[in-house]
Amino acid sequence: MDVIEAIKTRRSVRRFTGDPIPDDVMTDILEAVQWAPSWANTQCWEVIVVKDQALRDRIAEEIMKGNPASKGVAACPAVLVMLAIEGQAGFYKGEAISDKGDWYMYDIGVAMQNVTLAAWRHGLGTVHVGAMDAPGLEKILEIPEGRRVVSLTPLGYPEKVGPAPPRKEISEFVFTDTYGKK
Amino acid sequence: MDVIEAIKTRRSVRRFTGDPIPDDVMTDILEAVQWAPSWANTQCWEVIVVKDQALRDRIAEEIMKGNPASKGVAACPAVLVMLAIEGQAGFYKGEAISDKGDWYMYDIGVAMQNVTLAAWRHGLGTVHVGAMDAPGLEKILEIPEGRRVVSLTPLGYPEKVGPAPPRKEISEFVFTDTYGKK
Repeated sequence: MDVIEAIKTRRSVRRFTGDPIPDDVMTDILEAVQWAPSWANTQCWEVIVVKDQALRDRIAEEIMKGNPASKGVAACPAVLVMLAIEGQAGFYKGEAISDKGDWYMYDIGVAMQNVTLAAWRHGLGTVHVGAMDAPGLEKILEIPEGRRVVSLTPLGYPEKVGPAPPRKEISEFVFTDTYGKK
Repeated sequence: MDVIEAIKTRRSVRRFTGDPIPDDVMTDILEAVQWAPSWANTQCWEVIVVKDQALRDRIAEEIMKGNPASKGVAACPAVLVMLAIEGQAGFYKGEAISDKGDWYMYDIGVAMQNVTLAAWRHGLGTVHVGAMDAPGLEKILEIPEGRRVVSLTPLGYPEKVGPAPPRKEISEFVFTDTYGKK
């Protein structure tokens, strides 16, 4: 699947069959994390692949009420939980060197987008989930100090793929040379 | 180009020819932003396409000293500056609802990764740049209140593509079910 096609046809998926994911497909998806670019190649990511049903049920409970991804987490064969190692992205010689502090949110966003595209290529659905009790998940998943749960996605074969939500027009968000100039 | 190939062969590029970018290619790259997923479809991104040489020279001066992307910004035909609208990603009914506050760093990372992959598909190089004086850039680019410069990339045809920096092994950053479990 061409990368442009993947970018444009990818949809966020929240309803899944329980069909298992072949090992070689899972490897391809984890390699999409491995090959993501990162701040000074610090690779501040870690991934927990949660297959255990009881754990997935507990994760589902930590997602914001009413978010349909919650049912997807319980129903899908595997959840990928993206962790960040604090104090690496955005730092130089131990000091945060930009006005943004720690850049782990950015780098995990980058890596997770690689996951969504690689998964879509293999017919698998994903959805970036951030509306959850991350500290609660850190307890459930036994995350040590210095690591943060950032986002997660259910991963599985779609039971249903919805329509694309409407997008802003290019002309609404693109400017030339300075802000507001067309 | 298959999406998996794009993910695995993409390299960060810091040296560019000055060859111009065809309009249809630029459109494809901007559509890669348009089709990125975002927090509750808030699409908090804006993009400034900086072609003006004098402006690119000034942007280059705001990048951290010694970063080779600085020369790329001056030499390439166009720089894409990614802005975030504050107070949208991570919010529900006007309130930040996670322990991470504003999620714009995450969503801009997602969108910029789409840019790097779409560009690579067209033979164009990019590099995520965050080590810079973003408030200085906000003045140069006349960014209004409520918008933040997050990252930028030079965009152009590579003069040189370097080797891939080494990556962690999958086994170093992937766990099963709970932290540290293989």
